[in-house]
Amino acid sequence: MDYEVFFNERLLDLRSEGRYRVFADLERARGTFPRAMINSPDGSREVIVWCSNDYLGMGRHPAVVSAMKEAVDAYGAGAGGTRNIAGTNHLHVLLECELAALHGKQAALIFNSGYMSNWATLATLGTHIPGLIIFSDAANHASMIEGIRHSRCECIVWRHNDVCDLNEKLRAADPRAPKLIAFESVYSMDGDIAPIRDICDLAENYGAMTYLDEVHAVGMYGHTGGGIAEREGLSDRLTIIEGTLAKAYGVMGGYIAASAALCDFIRSFASGFIFTTALPPALTAGALASIRHLKKSPFERARLQDRVARLRGLLDRAGIPHIDNPSHIVPIVIGDAAKCKRVSDLLVRDLGIYAQPINYPTVPRRTERLRITPTPLHTDADIEHLVSALATLWSHCALSKAAA
Amino acid sequence: MDYEVFFNERLLDLRSEGRYRVFADLERARGTFPRAMINSPDGSREVIVWCSNDYLGMGRHPAVVSAMKEAVDAYGAGAGGTRNIAGTNHLHVLLECELAALHGKQAALIFNSGYMSNWATLATLGTHIPGLIIFSDAANHASMIEGIRHSRCECIVWRHNDVCDLNEKLRAADPRAPKLIAFESVYSMDGDIAPIRDICDLAENYGAMTYLDEVHAVGMYGHTGGGIAEREGLSDRLTIIEGTLAKAYGVMGGYIAASAALCDFIRSFASGFIFTTALPPALTAGALASIRHLKKSPFERARLQDRVARLRGLLDRAGIPHIDNPSHIVPIVIGDAAKCKRVSDLLVRDLGIYAQPINYPTVPRRTERLRITPTPLHTDADIEHLVSALATLWSHCALSKAAA
Repeated sequence: MDYEVFFNERLLDLRSEGRYRVFADLERARGTFPRAMINSPDGSREVIVWCSNDYLGMGRHPAVVSAMKEAVDAYGAGAGGTRNIAGTNHLHVLLECELAALHGKQAALIFNSGYMSNWATLATLGTHIPGLIIFSDAANHASMIEGIRHSRCECIVWRHNDVCDLNEKLRAADPRAPKLIAFESVYSMDGDIAPIRDICDLAENYGAMTYLDEVHAVGMYGHTGGGIAEREGLSDRLTIIEGTLAKAYGVMGGYIAASAALCDFIRSFASGFIFTTALPPALTAGALASIRHLKKSPFERARLQDRVARLRGLLDRAGIPHIDNPSHIVPIVIGDAAKCKRVSDLLVRDLGIYAQPINYPTVPRRTERLRITPTPLHTDADIEHLVSALATLWSHCALSKAAA
Repeated sequence: MDYEVFFNERLLDLRSEGRYRVFADLERARGTFPRAMINSPDGSREVIVWCSNDYLGMGRHPAVVSAMKEAVDAYGAGAGGTRNIAGTNHLHVLLECELAALHGKQAALIFNSGYMSNWATLATLGTHIPGLIIFSDAANHASMIEGIRHSRCECIVWRHNDVCDLNEKLRAADPRAPKLIAFESVYSMDGDIAPIRDICDLAENYGAMTYLDEVHAVGMYGHTGGGIAEREGLSDRLTIIEGTLAKAYGVMGGYIAASAALCDFIRSFASGFIFTTALPPALTAGALASIRHLKKSPFERARLQDRVARLRGLLDRAGIPHIDNPSHIVPIVIGDAAKCKRVSDLLVRDLGIYAQPINYPTVPRRTERLRITPTPLHTDADIEHLVSALATLWSHCALSKAAA
């Protein structure tokens, strides 16, 4: 087999479907967030970034930046080993305590990414609990799906956010089998929110554990940033809350918060936790500073909601359809991979706006979109500029003004 | 099912086998590397760290530390998104070019960890190449095994470092099937080195790709730190070289270097690459500085070998058995999980030496060991102190002085 030919053919397939991904080569500037330089073969230009997951701009917050630099000075660059072999730093211990407290749990466990926390935790539970059935929401993130798949345990997919369907599927399953319901609070691409309370009720009825991915919610919802579960007063009813340090907290890494025994079990058996170098002191210190700030400061959360409402209002006035949802994510569906890429390219080239086209497999085919994420640092003028740019393109490109 | 009872029972099993892991709570001090404070319920004490994977002490190197702090100031804390959605920083582009050049390949691709680079690359190749057979060395790292397992492709395990066995297994396989041989250069726990040239010869005979994990070699071997493959002049014969930024380079992250088409294929299809936040600018900048330094400076490599030779010589003189191997890793086998932990505890408590006990599943049962990793910054006095401490324990604890 000619392997090079094989790889090139698969890449050509992607190109012909219009979903070959070109990464935007960015230089985010800390002092002028959400602005960045974007490099291309024709040179560099300044853009306003409208699609970052640094949802609250904490990546540029002075407290986070100082904490990181101080940690590099004090402890050096890397952790120096796995958590078990010379790699645990006292900052890891402090961060795990902080995360446990944030979610009202006994313990927490840090991973190097949200992907790894989902993958490793679900794979480990599915592998080690004999006969476990995982009930997985149809819209769950790739990292959860791959973790469940890796475990080879029984997986029953229920219709997205549909508690009736979940109820039926739980009722049909062996009542003696151990069970886990895996779902998210805020879904990344549509921005809709799960009926957490109803799911917890079902879990109690059927003796199931619950696993809630709050990566698009921690820091942004709840009185101290503990996510939708905190806002709804439901944290104590969830067996496991999973979150990230890479989005609202502005740094990198993932975690779970749960009972002491459960975290210790994952710590002791999860290959993806055991056999990997620990998070560097600088990232741990930055995350700690960010969580502590957002625990006390409601300003960023309130300002984010204000920016989102303002953007939605202007989009409505301009007749630009966007998916209605109760979160901070503003999806504008284009519905065609090539057209979506063309709109995005024109926005960068002519209008100084960067919004990456989102296509399959991140979203289903024919729902290709721009996924707009305002931050507290986008000004009124930035929002007006975005909406007028979109309105111009909408009239030029004959894009649908029908409600999404 | 009472899930808490289940988790607690499994943890009790670990305790009764003597392999429950207690993480050492460290504060590495950048200025006094390889010294660190170790925190325990009885208080803190200073130790010399003898088991870090910061093999060359680059985690404390001024060039690395400065680069990280400058990147935090310039770009902020996190990357702000996945590589595809607002998360690619110009430093990623530069780092991938540097890594490609280091290994004489057309391209490279960064992951958030070595674990993820192995897992995602092997899982993606095994899933997408129809009929692929992966020939996996029996001693391969957990991340490679899990990646192959995840792909569900056919996997044939060959005896560790045994080219005759590999040859037989290749000969017995369908000659038309696409094939990949996966192995490491320096094996972490025994420190032995693969017969890379012979394996490349077999790969050519049977039309197989080769996948070489060099995580315990990059930075430390070869004229510019390109690993054992560079030292042996074999880089161009390997299809994929995988490495880490977390060990000799002192930071965090993993990568592959290969043809442009292969890297683009993994970039385009690997779930664990696509759906994860990119490496923060500070880590990328630190890794770049570290690679560039070690490319030009032979000092750290030479000094490491000198320290290893000195330690081995003193161990021999003291009659303390250690596994003979051609690398920088000095394994001292204790052969019993509880005894290994006791020796490690006594070293910390009475002698100011930290060497984590290594037990199953990291090494096979009955080969529990201390895995000593000297660095260029361990002095003659540090080495003499270690050997005399071990000699004291060896006489007190009636440990075997027979050759390992």
